[in-house]
Amino acid sequence: MPFDYLPHLLIKSKSKIVLLVMDGLGGLPMEANGPTELEHAHSPNLDRLASQGMLGVTTPVRPGITPGSGPAHLALFGYDPIKYEIGRGVLESVGVGLHVGPGDVAARGNFCTLDRNGKIVDRRAGRIPSEESDPLVERLKKIVLPGVVTDVRQVKEYRFAVVMRGENLVPEIEDTDPQETGVPPLDPEPRTPSAQHTADLFKQWISQAQQVLADNTKANGLTLRGFASDPNLPRFEDSYGLHPACISVYPMYKGVSRLVGMDVIDFDGETPEDEFKAVARVWEDYDFFFVHIKKTDSKGEDGDFEGKAKVIEGVDTALPHLLELKPDVLIVTGDHSTPARLRTHSWHPVPFLLWAPATIRPDDQTRFGERACVHGALGNFSAHDTMPLALAHAQRLEKFGA
Amino acid sequence: MPFDYLPHLLIKSKSKIVLLVMDGLGGLPMEANGPTELEHAHSPNLDRLASQGMLGVTTPVRPGITPGSGPAHLALFGYDPIKYEIGRGVLESVGVGLHVGPGDVAARGNFCTLDRNGKIVDRRAGRIPSEESDPLVERLKKIVLPGVVTDVRQVKEYRFAVVMRGENLVPEIEDTDPQETGVPPLDPEPRTPSAQHTADLFKQWISQAQQVLADNTKANGLTLRGFASDPNLPRFEDSYGLHPACISVYPMYKGVSRLVGMDVIDFDGETPEDEFKAVARVWEDYDFFFVHIKKTDSKGEDGDFEGKAKVIEGVDTALPHLLELKPDVLIVTGDHSTPARLRTHSWHPVPFLLWAPATIRPDDQTRFGERACVHGALGNFSAHDTMPLALAHAQRLEKFGA
Repeated sequence: MPFDYLPHLLIKSKSKIVLLVMDGLGGLPMEANGPTELEHAHSPNLDRLASQGMLGVTTPVRPGITPGSGPAHLALFGYDPIKYEIGRGVLESVGVGLHVGPGDVAARGNFCTLDRNGKIVDRRAGRIPSEESDPLVERLKKIVLPGVVTDVRQVKEYRFAVVMRGENLVPEIEDTDPQETGVPPLDPEPRTPSAQHTADLFKQWISQAQQVLADNTKANGLTLRGFASDPNLPRFEDSYGLHPACISVYPMYKGVSRLVGMDVIDFDGETPEDEFKAVARVWEDYDFFFVHIKKTDSKGEDGDFEGKAKVIEGVDTALPHLLELKPDVLIVTGDHSTPARLRTHSWHPVPFLLWAPATIRPDDQTRFGERACVHGALGNFSAHDTMPLALAHAQRLEKFGA
Repeated sequence: MPFDYLPHLLIKSKSKIVLLVMDGLGGLPMEANGPTELEHAHSPNLDRLASQGMLGVTTPVRPGITPGSGPAHLALFGYDPIKYEIGRGVLESVGVGLHVGPGDVAARGNFCTLDRNGKIVDRRAGRIPSEESDPLVERLKKIVLPGVVTDVRQVKEYRFAVVMRGENLVPEIEDTDPQETGVPPLDPEPRTPSAQHTADLFKQWISQAQQVLADNTKANGLTLRGFASDPNLPRFEDSYGLHPACISVYPMYKGVSRLVGMDVIDFDGETPEDEFKAVARVWEDYDFFFVHIKKTDSKGEDGDFEGKAKVIEGVDTALPHLLELKPDVLIVTGDHSTPARLRTHSWHPVPFLLWAPATIRPDDQTRFGERACVHGALGNFSAHDTMPLALAHAQRLEKFGA
């Protein structure tokens, strides 16, 4: 259990919690004394929630550590990512709906371009569009190996995920991506003797895949990375007594949610409004809603300060759809910072807003922004403490001790 | 390793980090609503760095715990002093340049004054000046014991350090200082049976030393404390991928630095300017610079509020010598508080300033002082997290997980 002392304290309740995560929300000023993306955004609804609620800043994993998306979300869900490490192959696979059961081994794949000597010319196969890679993935699905079953799923463009199911599979295998061009892909080498059998099977699979891809000009080769197995995480529902739903456009976040046992909700569209309407549709069926907004992060990685602020403004505009559902607890935060200035994830603490009309002890902050959050009542805390705080404000925890 | 997850994340970089420690920096107002020493000091350079950077306050070891110099510095270097305990004998010895290798046993010594019955009259031998104790230390160096080698070094005034080198030496030995007058020094008693041999050797050494000192009036006896061995700390360079240099006037801080594998830089002079010029001289050879200013602590222990503020002003005036080197990360902090009002180390959190032009998320503080630090963006954090934060802002850490 992420918090051993919590399950004994859980109270049955009809209260509902929404965790709204704007990916990479935290930012930086582009120039000294300038605003951050969040401070720059015109966001009257968020500011009103900030006035009524409590602010803080979270450290996603540990001070100074820049988290990937997987660890950052696990932390928000209460699973210390230093303790619960999950291989990227599993994250990617479950993210696209591939089942990774106990004992299965999953990996991430990239199509790449090989020259006539088998050396890598382009590690991403010219970033071929999904329309081009889709039929190639269909061909990979048809590969047959003795004694095991494999499944492949397209992720996006040049990326795919592969899962192998069978007896005695062991994921301790080195990446085949040499991380450079001018050399051939590496063989899948076992890190432990027990992984020899699995490595041999993947070697056979790669060999067949090469033949299947040989007639392509761009995607005529592939590399595999992040071999991993299901980490067997404690279930969210057992940990917190909450029946949880994930509303996300992007596969990765669906994947992390599935790993902790959340139901992933299907819906059409990809705007914040579409996501909030999806929440509304299943509102009666769940009591915890993880809603993931991707584009704050994407714009941050593009270095697009204005674009990131606009995404935040879009969320703000759509927010009434969520608020009219009258959640008992609404948390608005990020999984990590992705400052447009740095064009990448960063270690900077993440703005955090907790709104819960029945139980809030308000601070004197009136805007949702990084500088305001520093002065908020929640202070600087670990993202790992988000779930206990949410449960408390949802009045779902009884007294510890007498 | 101090942080198990860090070594995997280290990126090669040419960025440079300066950790400027003003010993005992934290202070207290002398009267209600008055300024602290740091707030009282006129320090325009530090204030400018505070405006551009981020402030916080650190807890050196644990809340409420007043640290000694050794633990406080270990915490800043990322070695939790609750986990990594280092005997004072080792600290004192390495601090004066005595080598303490694996298996050696070191102790701190005090000269004392004994009456004709061998009872202690003065535990510090009238605080004899170093000029008087120096020839006595020379005599102690000549003591010869069977099967082991001993070395002695003057520390200051009535204090010295002794190291014993040989086979099967065990440091679990009780202090011989009874901590009171009117009684004779105690024998070095073993705490464990395995330390009997070592205790016997020290007993012989003390016996010979008594004879050597017998003709003195003041320093005619001695006591030994803090028997200890090399703690075998993980090396700073292995832990953080930084090639570290220590610039310090006082032996103790050189000693702690050596214990984690820092190079100790020799230089002439003892002013902040001398120290900063020493940094400049070796700037190209290292990428981490621990610069130690002692006199803030000394003035604090003297109860000299104005004197401590003047030391801070002296550091501020010399600071341009450091800034013109253009460090990527400059941290200005203390190892603990030494409020002139209390005339001793204290547990109060320590002002912390982090300046890093490329990566800072500024707060709205414009002065470097205790009250401002409370409102800084870094909040109240553990000194133990200093190194990961420094590495992050030096952009020397890659993403954790995908």
